[in-house]
Amino acid sequence: MTIKLNCDLGESFGAWRMGLDTAVMPHIDQANVACGFHAGDPQVMRKTLNLAREHQVTVGAHPAYPDLVGFGRRSLNCHPEEVVALMHYQVSALDGMARVQGLDVSYVKPHGALYNDMMANADVRRAVMQSLAEFHRPMALMLQATPAYKQHREEAKEWGLDLIFEAFADRCYEDDGRLRARTKAGAVLNREQMLKQVEQLRTEGTISTFGRQTLELEVDTLCVHGDNEEGVKAIREIREVLQG
Amino acid sequence: MTIKLNCDLGESFGAWRMGLDTAVMPHIDQANVACGFHAGDPQVMRKTLNLAREHQVTVGAHPAYPDLVGFGRRSLNCHPEEVVALMHYQVSALDGMARVQGLDVSYVKPHGALYNDMMANADVRRAVMQSLAEFHRPMALMLQATPAYKQHREEAKEWGLDLIFEAFADRCYEDDGRLRARTKAGAVLNREQMLKQVEQLRTEGTISTFGRQTLELEVDTLCVHGDNEEGVKAIREIREVLQG
Amino acid sequence: MTIKLNCDLGESFGAWRMGLDTAVMPHIDQANVACGFHAGDPQVMRKTLNLAREHQVTVGAHPAYPDLVGFGRRSLNCHPEEVVALMHYQVSALDGMARVQGLDVSYVKPHGALYNDMMANADVRRAVMQSLAEFHRPMALMLQATPAYKQHREEAKEWGLDLIFEAFADRCYEDDGRLRARTKAGAVLNREQMLKQVEQLRTEGTISTFGRQTLELEVDTLCVHGDNEEGVKAIREIREVLQG
Amino acid sequence: MTIKLNCDLGESFGAWRMGLDTAVMPHIDQANVACGFHAGDPQVMRKTLNLAREHQVTVGAHPAYPDLVGFGRRSLNCHPEEVVALMHYQVSALDGMARVQGLDVSYVKPHGALYNDMMANADVRRAVMQSLAEFHRPMALMLQATPAYKQHREEAKEWGLDLIFEAFADRCYEDDGRLRARTKAGAVLNREQMLKQVEQLRTEGTISTFGRQTLELEVDTLCVHGDNEEGVKAIREIREVLQG
Repeated sequence: MTIKLNCDLGESFGAWRMGLDTAVMPHIDQANVACGFHAGDPQVMRKTLNLAREHQVTVGAHPAYPDLVGFGRRSLNCHPEEVVALMHYQVSALDGMARVQGLDVSYVKPHGALYNDMMANADVRRAVMQSLAEFHRPMALMLQATPAYKQHREEAKEWGLDLIFEAFADRCYEDDGRLRARTKAGAVLNREQMLKQVEQLRTEGTISTFGRQTLELEVDTLCVHGDNEEGVKAIREIREVLQG
Repeated sequence: MTIKLNCDLGESFGAWRMGLDTAVMPHIDQANVACGFHAGDPQVMRKTLNLAREHQVTVGAHPAYPDLVGFGRRSLNCHPEEVVALMHYQVSALDGMARVQGLDVSYVKPHGALYNDMMANADVRRAVMQSLAEFHRPMALMLQATPAYKQHREEAKEWGLDLIFEAFADRCYEDDGRLRARTKAGAVLNREQMLKQVEQLRTEGTISTFGRQTLELEVDTLCVHGDNEEGVKAIREIREVLQG
Repeated sequence: MTIKLNCDLGESFGAWRMGLDTAVMPHIDQANVACGFHAGDPQVMRKTLNLAREHQVTVGAHPAYPDLVGFGRRSLNCHPEEVVALMHYQVSALDGMARVQGLDVSYVKPHGALYNDMMANADVRRAVMQSLAEFHRPMALMLQATPAYKQHREEAKEWGLDLIFEAFADRCYEDDGRLRARTKAGAVLNREQMLKQVEQLRTEGTISTFGRQTLELEVDTLCVHGDNEEGVKAIREIREVLQG
Repeated sequence: MTIKLNCDLGESFGAWRMGLDTAVMPHIDQANVACGFHAGDPQVMRKTLNLAREHQVTVGAHPAYPDLVGFGRRSLNCHPEEVVALMHYQVSALDGMARVQGLDVSYVKPHGALYNDMMANADVRRAVMQSLAEFHRPMALMLQATPAYKQHREEAKEWGLDLIFEAFADRCYEDDGRLRARTKAGAVLNREQMLKQVEQLRTEGTISTFGRQTLELEVDTLCVHGDNEEGVKAIREIREVLQG
């Protein structure tokens, strides 16, 4: 199976523009669309969905903690019931708006701090999985490919959920499978390293870590970034590498 | 056909409580559930939907202008495209959360200033109707029963929409069919007058106006209020009158 | 010096009412006024300040994390610079509105999760203290009286800040000086225990802990609650005990 | 007296950037700083104030209706008491943050729809003027220079307010002194027309309208725009013309 490309889109809000959505959409497979809690007002969502439809890109919901000013990047200590409810609200909002345009939302990728908390905290992960399991139609969960993927798969199986594992094309991995912290040297790969990492993932299904270990990773999709022209160019290059 | 009872519910928000939802729900037919823009956070919505399900009450979406601090009561000069998008967002959010609980949202009643603007302004009304016509499944529109009901029905027909006309049990009507402004004497009926108005609507299909005219009104449902114990008591009495 | 009474007030928001401010204000010395981020819109703030002026109650700012739906009760993982800025914004907003009414805000008591984080986390406490030290006129910090009070006093001294230590009249203390968690039995004192705790604080300057230890506490003010009639009654009784 | 240059600044919000504040600040006299209701979070405000201090630019508050998603551009039908309170809140927030940095806010220019409503509606203008008159120290009001300037001056005199009249360098005026609507041809001047309009204002104190009338305008300051490189370039050119 070919590794897909996913990208966070629809992150403008009101008068504020963010991301080169129009330039990115033709080159990706999966659009993670913001749902209004960290970015993406109703009109932005409508336009982003329309753009996804034009380019036949699969649509996923990208829900977040309610934190516009923090762009959903700050962990908010929510009760699991709050997580379930805010997931339902945001996924429903996008899903209904997608169906208005004849599209289906088929997966969910939590955003920012909610994503990090889901990866690090079993209670949050359980709440996220519960929320998707309760949804009225199948909704896969996109999460990070880590050495704990078997555990995650077992957890998902109990909820009857499909998982989509993502890796990061441009980030260096530690030996334990975590992303190397951005505060440390070598956290972000340069162009050459990035394309080499993608090639190795495609052909070997492995990643070379910061400590020069070889890490086997279950990867369905690569997260790419469309913030600027450079990012868009990288997406095209990654695509070429993936096509072999 | 029996006249139904509808009530605005789910208007709590976070730590703030509003309305005696638990006391009201057993006595009404249609619950207009707030969708988060003027009231009703995701957890409140979840609980309100659950309560509606228990009492087999029909669920409608109660979308509003984005104005928490003003409780959606202040007119906001939105572009029609903004109205369409905010309707889609809010109706979708509630609809998806309802389906999680095995419920369908079957109608929409705009809230507060959006309701008033819809009644007074053809552009807003068109945007509201367009938003429902575009929805992925049938969604009726609840609006005020006025002498302009034929025009409203024609407009709705063009969009393929069903209408639900509502009257106000406890409000005095002017000769032109508008509600008498709350700033004027006699705007709100006392208990006796209210029950008499309901009885007349049930048996004659008419209302006696402030100027002692007899007004024929197309009425499918009566809007009742569950803010306090008195309101809940009135709902029970109105119900008795409607049952003849 | 007499122990004072402080109470969180001005926690209504828009159409939502919370707290019996009018009943409470005559019986307290210090009003902690919400500043709009967890509760308290500009009109509520204006009315609360007016009420404080009428009863010659000292006004303090009660800033919080930006979290209306969570009422500021959920910890938000902010950068210290964010804490400084949100403190300045909220304290300034209340301070200016107070001066419009001829009042001065003389202290600050962080609210909810920000308060808890300040007590538990030295980085947050430092950011809070820095924000007050930077303010353009003296602003004392109200915080919890704990066995760590000497350390807190030293920290405050470095910033040139005055501290106001508060205890909780109705809460049971653990042997280490923390409040007994609400999830545990005996966390909240009954009326008799509460009044006894107040009396002991007044006469001995100590508290009897859950483990029957005697804890010396530096206490300038007691936090009381005006959520309901019972709370208001308790405030009056505590006042009587404090007057000896 | 030399005509000054004012510009709306500090309109970023959270992760979203807007405006070339750093490039603009050295070339203007008065910075209208957003206060959090339509743009400008506490950290953005702090940075903008710091930048103004560095370049010794006079700081004004730029308060708005509470409408982040609409950027304060949509008229919100507020009660005058609501206008007074939201003005006090926002002006106070900025004023306190400015004093932290040793700056004083000396004037207020309402933003967007609040500005337009103030110019068009005497009730809104009265509420705006009342709010500034109530402020605890002098605060001038910046508003549009129109043929009604004498009336505005009389109104301001009753409140004891100073006025700052602004004109728009790049906008065409109708014969009645209003700005030509942006929907009409010729509404926005090209570079040459703009510089000519500025020169005429400087030397004659008049404007040539769309209908080729000569309009006498009382102008203290010109509103300029720093949204993009072109705008910044225009500011420099306008400055040169003003210096003669």
